[in-house]
Amino acid sequence: MNILEIIAKKRDGMELSKDEIQYFIDEYIKDNVTDYQAAALLMAIYINGMNERETTDLTLAMAYSGDVLDLSSLGNVVDKHSTGGVGDKITLILMPIIASFGIPSAKMSGRGLGFTGGTIDKLESIPGYNTQIDVVSFIENVKNVGISIMGQTLNLAPADKKLYALRDTISCTESIHLIASSIMSKKIAAGANKIVLDVTCGSGAFMKNKQDAKKLADIMIKIGKLSGRTTVCVITDMNQPIGKSVGNTLEVIEAVDILRGKYMPKDVEHIITELGANMLVLAKKAVDIEDGKTKILENIRNGKAYEKLLQLVQNQGGDVSYIEDTDKFEKAKYIVEIKAKKSGVITSLDAYKVGTLSNYLGAGRMKKTDSINPRVGFVFEKKVGYAVSQDEVLGYIHADDEEKVNYVLKQELFEIK
Amino acid sequence: MNILEIIAKKRDGMELSKDEIQYFIDEYIKDNVTDYQAAALLMAIYINGMNERETTDLTLAMAYSGDVLDLSSLGNVVDKHSTGGVGDKITLILMPIIASFGIPSAKMSGRGLGFTGGTIDKLESIPGYNTQIDVVSFIENVKNVGISIMGQTLNLAPADKKLYALRDTISCTESIHLIASSIMSKKIAAGANKIVLDVTCGSGAFMKNKQDAKKLADIMIKIGKLSGRTTVCVITDMNQPIGKSVGNTLEVIEAVDILRGKYMPKDVEHIITELGANMLVLAKKAVDIEDGKTKILENIRNGKAYEKLLQLVQNQGGDVSYIEDTDKFEKAKYIVEIKAKKSGVITSLDAYKVGTLSNYLGAGRMKKTDSINPRVGFVFEKKVGYAVSQDEVLGYIHADDEEKVNYVLKQELFEIK
Repeated sequence: MNILEIIAKKRDGMELSKDEIQYFIDEYIKDNVTDYQAAALLMAIYINGMNERETTDLTLAMAYSGDVLDLSSLGNVVDKHSTGGVGDKITLILMPIIASFGIPSAKMSGRGLGFTGGTIDKLESIPGYNTQIDVVSFIENVKNVGISIMGQTLNLAPADKKLYALRDTISCTESIHLIASSIMSKKIAAGANKIVLDVTCGSGAFMKNKQDAKKLADIMIKIGKLSGRTTVCVITDMNQPIGKSVGNTLEVIEAVDILRGKYMPKDVEHIITELGANMLVLAKKAVDIEDGKTKILENIRNGKAYEKLLQLVQNQGGDVSYIEDTDKFEKAKYIVEIKAKKSGVITSLDAYKVGTLSNYLGAGRMKKTDSINPRVGFVFEKKVGYAVSQDEVLGYIHADDEEKVNYVLKQELFEIK
Repeated sequence: MNILEIIAKKRDGMELSKDEIQYFIDEYIKDNVTDYQAAALLMAIYINGMNERETTDLTLAMAYSGDVLDLSSLGNVVDKHSTGGVGDKITLILMPIIASFGIPSAKMSGRGLGFTGGTIDKLESIPGYNTQIDVVSFIENVKNVGISIMGQTLNLAPADKKLYALRDTISCTESIHLIASSIMSKKIAAGANKIVLDVTCGSGAFMKNKQDAKKLADIMIKIGKLSGRTTVCVITDMNQPIGKSVGNTLEVIEAVDILRGKYMPKDVEHIITELGANMLVLAKKAVDIEDGKTKILENIRNGKAYEKLLQLVQNQGGDVSYIEDTDKFEKAKYIVEIKAKKSGVITSLDAYKVGTLSNYLGAGRMKKTDSINPRVGFVFEKKVGYAVSQDEVLGYIHADDEEKVNYVLKQELFEIK
């Protein structure tokens, strides 16, 4: 077997065998296959596609290219993953809810990159919360309080990491087959055997339209099936930010408020009931989706989910007093109103723009080595569908820098018609 | 403009503009575009193709990426190029013939790589012949005696060199668009304004079938047209070696014998009359192809072409006595008969196998840094179509190593039915 033959086969639209895909991943990890050879193969895959068997073989080869987490001592772990979005604090809300049903909630999360945020960055805005625990403590935590969320300290799916970085530099990010195998390889390496995927779709997501989101979902479900992991996908809207807040501390505060029953944005309710119900059904804690949805909201109302959040934070070294009184979180220096420029109905609040500007304010990073500012971001009071009058307050910019406030105020985040 | 957008356009089957192609070549030469980005773009070009305009723009961008030879002081230079073959000594025979008509014959030739030989290696087997002259002497030689053949000492089309080497490692050698632009970029950089191309076709050539050879010829003719260089293509058979001899000294001896009128293999006659007649017509030294063919053979018969060969060798420091008496050339240690294993008609003499084994004997190189043995190779007395009886001598192995002789004797070069 040699890489030239493998590249030539895919170049000519032929199917690659399991062994050929394994060979490619093995040799790429060892640097025997070069980046330019991998680039040529990825481009051939992008253009000529892969069938489900090939995509699954690629997924498994990448999943087993490094550490693989063994969560079997925890029983049936249900994992949740989102393909990314703006204002996406769903993990912070949903994992405590799931844990409150006695379902082991062991989740490794990532940091934000580009215009989307990361759960680990958000959790680290809670003083003391330690995301860099070791795997033994991680599993111990789940055994003790039913939940733990940690950063990716293990060398999970290194082949995926290497290929992901390469794809970025050769215009091969948008390939549905490559996205699907990348996500599923990380989930499999992270030890889940039941996976619920939130496939986001819209301007603030990688999938811009419903058709592509559906295709991605279908492929991931098939990879799940072929690799023996029950996989459920829910397609959710990501044209505007999820909930009210965007930014690390601001999103933690919103998650706490929601779990305490202070308010419940419609879009958050939709996502957590859809995903949560599926997770409950998979874990046999609900008889069907409708039953699951009712139960999800029930455990918010009765305070059980909030209780789990407190246990999670406490158990992982976080200062619980910040959760109990979110006013304790340090605020940004400037909190400035965004006002409606005219009267009418809001027809758009562009998630991509919000994500990019939130990054600009300091909430995210453009390079992996950038540091982030937990305080800054946006809080929106009005979103798509609201009728507003001129000068009505639509939301707030939270910023530490006056110049940046002025720049953001000049941008058109809202469309009003 | 940026490389990611350019890659994405070709990935999606769109047409690249002249500026985009120029940007790619400029930045690739400066290492601002990486090898893996170039690999991704080449693969997209391989799969999605390029139209004639794009192919011409790529050709010109590569042609002008380094030194460009200015031969305008020589008048209308007609250049000849072959896409490579086994036993291809046509340049050694044809350029003196062409020069004997007063057509300036200024040719830069390459060394052999892989299973095909190179004119420069062959010329260097003549004691004293200096292939590494400077360009001023090169042009002076042509002015003085009408002919010069030198090695590629200039930095001609470095972008092509870099891309050519990359293509080899990513299974992108066989792309007709990329082959066409590679050949034409070198010809344009070498200063010709009238180009006659020998497109070889068969087991011993890069184009294995006539259809692909025709396609390659068509594209090169169109590139010629779009870039203002009159281009003529002749498609010639390369299923068996050209003429009788394969190997450096052996081919020089055959070229001398042919120019002295000692014998004329049918295939050599076909190629030199086809190519030569086209060159004469382009240079207005013949009224049509038929007239040209007659004249080509005439200048062999009357000794004018041989005279030019002597002038070429003498003028470039070569020892003419070797040409005048080819017995002076040092012989290989072993000259061993290849005998017919049975009686019948020869149906095949595989050029690719002959080229590869000739390489194995030491006549060629697998890596650029390998040194070659000028003495070794093959001389064939019988080729395809001959009726032979068992044990009849079909040809000779010329080798310096007994073990290699035994290995070659075990191979089936001839098919007899």
